[in-house]
Amino acid sequence: MRMMKAAVFVRPGKIVLDERPVPVIGAGEALVKITTTTICGTDVHILKGEYPVEPGRIVGHEPVGVIAELGAGVTGYTIGQRVIVGAITPCGQCHSCLDGHQSQCGGHATGGWKFGNTIDGCQAEYLRVPHAMANLAPIPDGLSDEQVLMCPDIMSTGFGGAESGDIRIGDTVVVYAQGPIGLCATAGARLKGASQIIVVDSVPERLATAKRLGADISLDYQQVDPVAEILELTGGRGADVAIEALGTQQTFESCLRSIKPGGVLSSLGVYSGKLGLPIDALAAGLGDHRIVTTLCPGGKERMRRLLNIVASQRVDLEPLVTHRFRLDEIEQAYDLFANQRDGVLKVAITP
Amino acid sequence: MRMMKAAVFVRPGKIVLDERPVPVIGAGEALVKITTTTICGTDVHILKGEYPVEPGRIVGHEPVGVIAELGAGVTGYTIGQRVIVGAITPCGQCHSCLDGHQSQCGGHATGGWKFGNTIDGCQAEYLRVPHAMANLAPIPDGLSDEQVLMCPDIMSTGFGGAESGDIRIGDTVVVYAQGPIGLCATAGARLKGASQIIVVDSVPERLATAKRLGADISLDYQQVDPVAEILELTGGRGADVAIEALGTQQTFESCLRSIKPGGVLSSLGVYSGKLGLPIDALAAGLGDHRIVTTLCPGGKERMRRLLNIVASQRVDLEPLVTHRFRLDEIEQAYDLFANQRDGVLKVAITP
Amino acid sequence: MRMMKAAVFVRPGKIVLDERPVPVIGAGEALVKITTTTICGTDVHILKGEYPVEPGRIVGHEPVGVIAELGAGVTGYTIGQRVIVGAITPCGQCHSCLDGHQSQCGGHATGGWKFGNTIDGCQAEYLRVPHAMANLAPIPDGLSDEQVLMCPDIMSTGFGGAESGDIRIGDTVVVYAQGPIGLCATAGARLKGASQIIVVDSVPERLATAKRLGADISLDYQQVDPVAEILELTGGRGADVAIEALGTQQTFESCLRSIKPGGVLSSLGVYSGKLGLPIDALAAGLGDHRIVTTLCPGGKERMRRLLNIVASQRVDLEPLVTHRFRLDEIEQAYDLFANQRDGVLKVAITP
Amino acid sequence: MRMMKAAVFVRPGKIVLDERPVPVIGAGEALVKITTTTICGTDVHILKGEYPVEPGRIVGHEPVGVIAELGAGVTGYTIGQRVIVGAITPCGQCHSCLDGHQSQCGGHATGGWKFGNTIDGCQAEYLRVPHAMANLAPIPDGLSDEQVLMCPDIMSTGFGGAESGDIRIGDTVVVYAQGPIGLCATAGARLKGASQIIVVDSVPERLATAKRLGADISLDYQQVDPVAEILELTGGRGADVAIEALGTQQTFESCLRSIKPGGVLSSLGVYSGKLGLPIDALAAGLGDHRIVTTLCPGGKERMRRLLNIVASQRVDLEPLVTHRFRLDEIEQAYDLFANQRDGVLKVAITP
Repeated sequence: MRMMKAAVFVRPGKIVLDERPVPVIGAGEALVKITTTTICGTDVHILKGEYPVEPGRIVGHEPVGVIAELGAGVTGYTIGQRVIVGAITPCGQCHSCLDGHQSQCGGHATGGWKFGNTIDGCQAEYLRVPHAMANLAPIPDGLSDEQVLMCPDIMSTGFGGAESGDIRIGDTVVVYAQGPIGLCATAGARLKGASQIIVVDSVPERLATAKRLGADISLDYQQVDPVAEILELTGGRGADVAIEALGTQQTFESCLRSIKPGGVLSSLGVYSGKLGLPIDALAAGLGDHRIVTTLCPGGKERMRRLLNIVASQRVDLEPLVTHRFRLDEIEQAYDLFANQRDGVLKVAITP
Repeated sequence: MRMMKAAVFVRPGKIVLDERPVPVIGAGEALVKITTTTICGTDVHILKGEYPVEPGRIVGHEPVGVIAELGAGVTGYTIGQRVIVGAITPCGQCHSCLDGHQSQCGGHATGGWKFGNTIDGCQAEYLRVPHAMANLAPIPDGLSDEQVLMCPDIMSTGFGGAESGDIRIGDTVVVYAQGPIGLCATAGARLKGASQIIVVDSVPERLATAKRLGADISLDYQQVDPVAEILELTGGRGADVAIEALGTQQTFESCLRSIKPGGVLSSLGVYSGKLGLPIDALAAGLGDHRIVTTLCPGGKERMRRLLNIVASQRVDLEPLVTHRFRLDEIEQAYDLFANQRDGVLKVAITP
Repeated sequence: MRMMKAAVFVRPGKIVLDERPVPVIGAGEALVKITTTTICGTDVHILKGEYPVEPGRIVGHEPVGVIAELGAGVTGYTIGQRVIVGAITPCGQCHSCLDGHQSQCGGHATGGWKFGNTIDGCQAEYLRVPHAMANLAPIPDGLSDEQVLMCPDIMSTGFGGAESGDIRIGDTVVVYAQGPIGLCATAGARLKGASQIIVVDSVPERLATAKRLGADISLDYQQVDPVAEILELTGGRGADVAIEALGTQQTFESCLRSIKPGGVLSSLGVYSGKLGLPIDALAAGLGDHRIVTTLCPGGKERMRRLLNIVASQRVDLEPLVTHRFRLDEIEQAYDLFANQRDGVLKVAITP
Repeated sequence: MRMMKAAVFVRPGKIVLDERPVPVIGAGEALVKITTTTICGTDVHILKGEYPVEPGRIVGHEPVGVIAELGAGVTGYTIGQRVIVGAITPCGQCHSCLDGHQSQCGGHATGGWKFGNTIDGCQAEYLRVPHAMANLAPIPDGLSDEQVLMCPDIMSTGFGGAESGDIRIGDTVVVYAQGPIGLCATAGARLKGASQIIVVDSVPERLATAKRLGADISLDYQQVDPVAEILELTGGRGADVAIEALGTQQTFESCLRSIKPGGVLSSLGVYSGKLGLPIDALAAGLGDHRIVTTLCPGGKERMRRLLNIVASQRVDLEPLVTHRFRLDEIEQAYDLFANQRDGVLKVAITP
């Protein structure tokens, strides 16, 4: 039995580097040798015990790598081909997938999110990819691992927030929180034709990065009341769309207070505790508001589209990688990332 | 000055029959002699002081009548023509109307709802109709006042809930509460192609009426746990769409718990107090849920469509009229309707 | 090698009953023992040589049957289970399927249509079903074969025409031609909330069946000019949606002439020869017209929805089966059906 | 009676500068003093007699100016305010407008296009604006006339082609013809998130301008077969969307041949003569193709959005103005523009 190194969830507070068998693949599956991966905010939720996964689970859901083996029935790919796989890996064949709800694969909430959740993930030397025909996405020539590292999750999620907001040409869009996903939502709002993009955060570097990715106006919520400011900036109209990219009551509620009657609150955050809907901001239910939540879209067609966005230089997310670690050092990487030290946005992990 | 009788809001707890001048109309407006109108649940909110309107306001927003006068610039209509006017009267020319948010006319939340709210309403002998070109809807020959009395609000709102739910052929749709609006939502779900319509209420007569309007299964929430029942009836999938037609935390939350990942909560209720979003039912924000609120669509094109639904006998809502009063007796009508006595669903008021 | 009887395309003009090996299935596939099937207009195109298929191909794409064998990896089904399979069998895992174009599976035009086209079909004792996980749809208890026989193609296609037309509550919808697919489009328009459904044909029995399935008005194009009549019936507005269900220049053009500016021509026909777009009817390209073509939607989720429509008695298409044959008699069945003798609508074929 | 200068259609082949009374406005209308306007390809169709207008009609439909008078009931504006008005001026209150088909105002094909068509236009010193409340759009501070001159028609039409194509993030979009409208369609495709934009024309300057506005690849149809090239550039997939911006059989047909099964042909051209739909490119009607035609969206909300796109520097269309004339010289301007001399793209006309 070949062994490999992997980051394994042991118990709340403890993710360790461990030795695990290289996965054995079956029909319809693929084995990918990981060349670069990263840590997600959701992994930190797992680390902290806020999102439950089985002890012993290899974590990580943002793989860049090389095809090492192909199971029976997986055609059209070659060993050695560079690929990414989305954080969400739909089967494509269940009722939910066929009905357009690929992220809810199997009909279970978040059912499409398997890596590092319900099956072993990619913070490891090798990754078993289920439903490989639906999920292996070749990397266009000339793109580096780090250039495409945001595609599997961060970019797909952030852009998904912009897409679910039904942004139209000339819209005003607000994005609350400019962590990696919020930054991608900002880039997505720009891609979709918003004419006024307002971002809210308190970290100067993040607000500056937001401007580079397409924001027109940045608001530091420690300096100004963002809702009041947004109403003034829109002549009292309110934003057409507000994207929530943090997962707190305050940002959720501020989003609702920032949008016009008939506007959309597009929510990307992962919430815990309680979430209240302020009745006044909802116009007692009479304001034609829409609240939409979006889980990262996956599947190889989604990945193909995102890779093409990178290849055509529409958006450059490589600068989000602020720190680099070897897989050996992943415990240090978690320590840095979980504590948001040293201005970290995203880390690159290389086995 | 010609005088007329009208139901006037005096203070919380007090709506009285009073004498008021017949309205004087300006350019672009019309005067409609009311032949039949009705009382809405929202009027009861006004009566109870739960929804604030200016003292002295003539209430009522569901007019059926005859054109008595036409202001300058109002063409294509004739004096004496039978018409309805929607509860919501969009101007058609502001940014919100031109952007497809006619119910939020003027850019203010609920801005399209004017009658009996921001201008005088139709529980009176005469009604001034603003933006008449956008709002006067001729009644097709052969239809009685009572046949079309539900069009201005109840039918438009209930159908709106079904439309906002994006119901598709073969969907399972749940409707929580079977008051007049919930019953119309049930009829709307049927019209839109749902294959399984489940309604929840506790009043046997309402559940029976729901079956006649298209429900397949009725659940008495005092007998069974509707969420558990719905999950069982759908083989664990959950409903595709749940329509909230009451305006309480419990029904709102039950709706969210009744839908599948990727499902839609279409909310029609008017909420007061606090509204909480249960995080578990929302899959922490990762379930691709959509929550949509809908205010009654108005305008003459909407009314034309609804009148045609009545004329083509797709839906018969006349049986919702359970009691009849003269305008003189409107205080008794409010007493009966506000206290939901004698199995009342809707009352017809005739000046 | 087990042998079975099957209807085989030999050359234009010749489909014969022949002996063929029972299919051998592989991983991810299923073998279905056919209990009932039918002949489609497209099969007649094949017979006549108007649609090319490989000589030796077993024809037929509308299977009702029983699961006889399940390949490796096909789970959640049992041998002996009654199922239907859609005429279109998407893989669910290619770029087109993942992008929502399941009928164009593989990225090739009509790529999702495999049975009796690019692989052997179901006018046989046994059928090999590819991508079984995405395509096997269990029949609800209590439904007979003939009740569900229209689901795989006719009903899915006809309803698809109504769906692609974006029919809204209160629309006027015209359906040109009331053969089996047109009749299903009529039923679909009714299901989607049209308030005025006008059908055009010349066969009295078909027009009468259309009325039973939901048409309000029937026009015999040999008696009246349908376009002129439709304009009159709509007060000069034109229809909101026109569905083409025949595949000729004349019906296509009449559809375009029947719709309002901003209307939709939803095309279901299979065209041959030349097709012209009359510039005047298209308002020189300035009329905001939409022309949409639709190939039968397939996959098990689609089939589940259609089966539920049948089970909930929304639509009863069993009366479309006007004639019955044993598989042994299939050459006679083709003769009757291809020549549209004896008022035939659909035939049921039982091996 | 005050007189003014105006460009008047006399007969096919003859548009002349003439003296005409300054328009008198009524209730709900406005008088705009024109400061800059331009000539459209459609005006050339009028000049050539290919599009019929009444002799004596003042032509032109792209106004930039200053409010000179406001009719009764027009509020929220001030005399002297700088405004644009869309080429299409919806009333906002008819059935078509209320139904979302504002360009087809009144229910007549192209009914929203009034200026220089059914009422006098803006190649004059003054312009009467009907339904002023729905149509006057203030120009943001700091923008010059020439910066916003494309908004009323060219930009709205071109962007409309991208919007009607339902362009999604990562799409491949082809635009056939890079005249002013095609160039704006290119800019619109970029704004909507296409990752690969391919443009087709033969004029090097136009192809170069297209690159500056967002095209990735330009094809000279005199050098290569664009359809073959597009298939190769997309790995055989075909484009997701093709935009037709010329109005000929060849470009229309090439669009259809350039798109994938399930793709969209978004047509902006004004066609004359005959238009054929090649059956093979349409997959005999089975390819899930969509063909959509779009007339320039108008109304003040649309204009507000486009002005904001200019103000936020998303797109700079000022370089499309290649030539400048005084209103006195308009006959020369027509001569230059109609004959497409001197590399003209758009002219600016100043009274």
